[in-house]
Amino acid sequence: MLSTYKMIIAYDGTEYGGWQIQNNSTTIQALIQDALHTVLRKSLSVIASGRTDAGVHALKQVAHFKCSDELNISKTLLSLNALLPKDIRILSLESAPPSFHARFGAHSKIYHYYLYLDPVLDPFLRRYTYRPAHTIDLSLLKEAMHYFVGTHDFTSFANVKEIGSNNERTIHRLELLEQGPWGQNSDKVVCLSFEGSGFLYKMVRNIVGTLLDICATKLCMSDIPKLFAARDRRAAGRAAPPQALFLIEVNYSISSNDV
Amino acid sequence: MLSTYKMIIAYDGTEYGGWQIQNNSTTIQALIQDALHTVLRKSLSVIASGRTDAGVHALKQVAHFKCSDELNISKTLLSLNALLPKDIRILSLESAPPSFHARFGAHSKIYHYYLYLDPVLDPFLRRYTYRPAHTIDLSLLKEAMHYFVGTHDFTSFANVKEIGSNNERTIHRLELLEQGPWGQNSDKVVCLSFEGSGFLYKMVRNIVGTLLDICATKLCMSDIPKLFAARDRRAAGRAAPPQALFLIEVNYSISSNDV
Repeated sequence: MLSTYKMIIAYDGTEYGGWQIQNNSTTIQALIQDALHTVLRKSLSVIASGRTDAGVHALKQVAHFKCSDELNISKTLLSLNALLPKDIRILSLESAPPSFHARFGAHSKIYHYYLYLDPVLDPFLRRYTYRPAHTIDLSLLKEAMHYFVGTHDFTSFANVKEIGSNNERTIHRLELLEQGPWGQNSDKVVCLSFEGSGFLYKMVRNIVGTLLDICATKLCMSDIPKLFAARDRRAAGRAAPPQALFLIEVNYSISSNDV
Repeated sequence: MLSTYKMIIAYDGTEYGGWQIQNNSTTIQALIQDALHTVLRKSLSVIASGRTDAGVHALKQVAHFKCSDELNISKTLLSLNALLPKDIRILSLESAPPSFHARFGAHSKIYHYYLYLDPVLDPFLRRYTYRPAHTIDLSLLKEAMHYFVGTHDFTSFANVKEIGSNNERTIHRLELLEQGPWGQNSDKVVCLSFEGSGFLYKMVRNIVGTLLDICATKLCMSDIPKLFAARDRRAAGRAAPPQALFLIEVNYSISSNDV
């Protein structure tokens, strides 16, 4: 009988090749699986709510794994954190119902993207924000953001290699918050806060890049419906850089936590 | 005729051997002087309000230099920041009266030291806080802090190599704030906020180390007057680590800004 365990993980993605195991870079999944192997002497797969790209951060990534042992949870948590580098922390480890699946059970996710607006970039925010080369008209940005809310085919905003058969997703909320990555008030940082049913690969960064192209007058507001209609990644703007993107939280419907 | 220029500088000290030029490590003073040399083609000395140790950060370090040219201030500022690494930023550059001296004119300074209180250290605060190995009794900490406020001979809290003839300094204020390094509210971080007339070399870290020794019951509250009386660095606690220390601001009396 396999037991299911749920983890909540925070990581500073600066030094990593993203969540998912790869041959040519150190990834968060690989380090956590290695640590589990050391502690439990088993090769286990850790499944996250979704992969994050190289350089992207997470405040509360959710993942699960299945294991034939009953774990001593607090001891396992301490051992894992002792083995992991300090820029990856397991915040919690708990027993979950067998039906719990970190990816398929995820009901909605919140991502934040932080823009630094002042010409002189705060040295303490250089790893966690993006400073566009041009000035940002916040009212233009807000207006353009409206186009992305709701249910759309986001093919034009998905990484071209990764397009599946169904690229329809719903963005429930997209707001501009005046706060920095640690919740601090700042008149120099704005946060694009996305809440959605799910996000295609690189979708948030591709949307932010498109919004920035509109602010830089490389694209017009009236182009946005055409971008959606094109269903072609080449139509939309470039991806915004990764270091300003944070996976903030993942929500599960109550039923996915039931036994 | 030499002109005097005042700079306000922010730096993430993680990668540096402190402010002051040294033979065997990269320092902030060296990088700023090198950048000035590149921009102005002159070897200039940049004098800070005080040196900060290896690994210590600054939000608003103040420095000055003297130069025989009249500078184009906004252009010089842009050029310096373009040359400097991103973890050092000149926030402002301005003309100052000839009498302005960043070190001798400094009237008071504010330093913050951030303690992380939860066993699982937030990966985003690992470079900017210190997590003591033992739990911290905040009421005990607050009580012990009172002993350091006021005018004292701080010889026991100064680096032994650096003791001068007058080690009397005044701490005007020492409070415990419930905030993280970016001003964020947090129930996991506390800030020891020091405001004083001046600080001896390593004095803040030595005081924090002594306070932590009291919390760890390695020292008693009643030992504190004896530590001061000993006038001997070996009497007091170890220095707390550098990465949690920030120079927050330096204040100048109005007269030092007069022509």
